[in-house]
Amino acid sequence: MIAISVLGYGNLASHLVAAFEKVKSVNVIQIYNRHPIKNKPFNALFTTNLSDLLPADIYIIAIPDDAISVFSSKLKTDGLVVHTSGSVPLEALQTQSRAGVFYPLQSFTKGKALSFKNIPICIEATDKKDLELLFKLARSISDSVIKITTAQRKKLHVAAVFVNNFTNYMYTIGESLCEDNKIDFNILKPLILETALKIETVSPHQAQTGPARRKDVVTIKKHLDFLPKEYQEIYTLLTQSIQKNYDKKL
Amino acid sequence: MIAISVLGYGNLASHLVAAFEKVKSVNVIQIYNRHPIKNKPFNALFTTNLSDLLPADIYIIAIPDDAISVFSSKLKTDGLVVHTSGSVPLEALQTQSRAGVFYPLQSFTKGKALSFKNIPICIEATDKKDLELLFKLARSISDSVIKITTAQRKKLHVAAVFVNNFTNYMYTIGESLCEDNKIDFNILKPLILETALKIETVSPHQAQTGPARRKDVVTIKKHLDFLPKEYQEIYTLLTQSIQKNYDKKL
Repeated sequence: MIAISVLGYGNLASHLVAAFEKVKSVNVIQIYNRHPIKNKPFNALFTTNLSDLLPADIYIIAIPDDAISVFSSKLKTDGLVVHTSGSVPLEALQTQSRAGVFYPLQSFTKGKALSFKNIPICIEATDKKDLELLFKLARSISDSVIKITTAQRKKLHVAAVFVNNFTNYMYTIGESLCEDNKIDFNILKPLILETALKIETVSPHQAQTGPARRKDVVTIKKHLDFLPKEYQEIYTLLTQSIQKNYDKKL
Repeated sequence: MIAISVLGYGNLASHLVAAFEKVKSVNVIQIYNRHPIKNKPFNALFTTNLSDLLPADIYIIAIPDDAISVFSSKLKTDGLVVHTSGSVPLEALQTQSRAGVFYPLQSFTKGKALSFKNIPICIEATDKKDLELLFKLARSISDSVIKITTAQRKKLHVAAVFVNNFTNYMYTIGESLCEDNKIDFNILKPLILETALKIETVSPHQAQTGPARRKDVVTIKKHLDFLPKEYQEIYTLLTQSIQKNYDKKL
């Protein structure tokens, strides 16, 4: 049985607590949050006072990136202390005798239930036994646990920004173009899903289609002609980048 | 029973023929292609000679956009002639007495079987009876048939470029960042799928997360520091655009 405490109760933390409380091999003994929480949707004990922390095997810090380092320096424990951030180095926990990272690679929306089963969890720790402990903890909720370094995690995080945040922004632009022209955005949803599913079988590089890929300058010009200026710049830059990308590999 | 001929046998045409040949209410009587086709994976008659065309109710032109107008001018018939392009106006078929558009909004990969059931088909025709005929034809393979104008279709097509072509390019950048850093791109696939599925329930505008959305300048700077120059520009432009977008709506 692994005893854990979750420090912070934001988006990710609330999903983690819900997942761990369903698992027999993990005991969520305590949750800390700066502010009180309404209706406490968990069984664990709760505190707003760091000095009330009970002993645990692992302390999971799930707070905003820029607060991790300072928060960690206030946390006095011999347990394993991990953070959950994609972009914060392991060294941010340097005041701890045992430090690690427990980074679930997913975007969490408050209130939307999510199974961790298929969510990759990236783990890191300097000590081999701590890494094994983190592996056990991660495996208790996910089938996909990957050991990666701080350097790799940094790159993975920016890759995630492209495939998640920027992709979502492409959807937003699509939605806004539909709205401006009284077209139901739902018409685009099957295409969006197919685009995501296609790369299960074909690499994105191979899957690329469209006017930029086939250097269809007539269509590109037509599109640019009526796009709002802001989207024109994005269209132009992405089109140029796609064209360069396929020139290179010819 | 609607008798159709399919003119051209590229990616889209081969998928359309396969779908229509499974439908009882449609009879694919003939396929025309400029070049002979190996193994002819269809039951319809085949010709490489436009003057051999048999009478049909609907002629579906499925050839590259820039060839549609010239091709149509060589096609002499009293039947309904439609093209399948997202960006070519109805007027490209002006030499026809009866013209229309039959535009399935999806990206087709050669060899990858695809059901049209959930693919929106956008139809257009000047004559009301022709529009009804096109509606019947489209409904025979798809549950989602939408009447849209040439102007709307043009906008929808550019929206599709953003949500399909440019989104796929975001995946390509993600893949390339992974490869450069010896990270398995498969780790990103659950996130990619979740990003596409999320907007089934939340609008993309609401679903936006990430450093740009929360104006996390520290993370943005870290990301820019190690990105290759080409991706740096894309990262910067999209980040600025997201920030503007959320400033506006505050």
